[in-house]
Amino acid sequence: MGRIPENTLRRLTHYLRCMQRLAEQGRDEIQSKDLAAYCKVSDSLVRRDLSYFGEFGKRGKGYSISILLPKIREIVGLDKERNIAVVGIGNIGRALLNYPFHRFNFKIVAGFDIKPELVGKEINGVPIYHIDEIGRVAKEKDISIAIVAVPEEAGDAVKEKIITAGIRGILSFVLLRGPFPKEVWVRYIELPSELEILSFYMEKGGVI
Amino acid sequence: MGRIPENTLRRLTHYLRCMQRLAEQGRDEIQSKDLAAYCKVSDSLVRRDLSYFGEFGKRGKGYSISILLPKIREIVGLDKERNIAVVGIGNIGRALLNYPFHRFNFKIVAGFDIKPELVGKEINGVPIYHIDEIGRVAKEKDISIAIVAVPEEAGDAVKEKIITAGIRGILSFVLLRGPFPKEVWVRYIELPSELEILSFYMEKGGVI
Repeated sequence: MGRIPENTLRRLTHYLRCMQRLAEQGRDEIQSKDLAAYCKVSDSLVRRDLSYFGEFGKRGKGYSISILLPKIREIVGLDKERNIAVVGIGNIGRALLNYPFHRFNFKIVAGFDIKPELVGKEINGVPIYHIDEIGRVAKEKDISIAIVAVPEEAGDAVKEKIITAGIRGILSFVLLRGPFPKEVWVRYIELPSELEILSFYMEKGGVI
Repeated sequence: MGRIPENTLRRLTHYLRCMQRLAEQGRDEIQSKDLAAYCKVSDSLVRRDLSYFGEFGKRGKGYSISILLPKIREIVGLDKERNIAVVGIGNIGRALLNYPFHRFNFKIVAGFDIKPELVGKEINGVPIYHIDEIGRVAKEKDISIAIVAVPEEAGDAVKEKIITAGIRGILSFVLLRGPFPKEVWVRYIELPSELEILSFYMEKGGVI
């Protein structure tokens, strides 16, 4: 398998979601054009993306979801469960604590905040700790990813604490100031960016 | 300006966010390597991405944020305010109603749900309507984008109502069944996908 471009990877995870849902509806054999329509991408793109994983499709018969789905999961390294923490228990943080991540091999094992009325509580079965405990808790609970949902101005301080705690994956709703250590991976969910990209396509046309 | 690839567009919106923050801190002249470190991308990538917009940088002096920022906004069509609606007022929906989108030229003007205890109320100044009113409200309030935050099983039903209401941009937290009309643009914020992509890089290495 060659290097997978980021856009391909993004679409692959989207196909996983589509296939999982089709499988839940009892579908198994599927043509690339059906998957394409379901996922709103082009037929040729689906075939090209899936070709990174070798020859799964049979000419005229399409793909078997029950074969393709676990194979893709395995190849992209999604076959083991990862423990995650939510840092910042505001509106977005609470929503995250209620999100069914367990369906996707991720488990929220801890929340972190600084508010006395939150620390020591449980929300949806997840214990909330003070952010200063993150080093100990991360080790005890084998946390590999932190989702950051703190107010903008708290971002840099929690970033340092997360990195010092040895957590190597950060998914952040707020901008964090670089530079970052080489062994730390950071991704953003920037709601304004998503709206901006959508606006751009609505204005200028093109294919998402 | 040639066609802007999606990844470039995504990074550009991220640069906008970085530059906006640097500007708030009183910075103006910035070298591409500083922006690169701040945004955690490579120096050469920043220069390549910004080159889509012509020659803004001066050799040795870097970029002027006060010139570059509005120019990029204008070129990618972000210079006018857009009205948006939140469909589904659960945990994520409530978080969205409290998000400072107005800082980014987006304004939440309506929320939609079906729960009698929500319909007719206001949350953070935003009126909540029954989803069946979306056609009328979308016209009255000139809504161009709907953010979908309903439970998975309600996705397809609200998708139809949004499209029938003439809203052409959809940003969805749940998977929506295609196909979609050609004039409708759909983007997803798939939390599991983001975690999966992050996991992939943590496992296999590479540059995000």
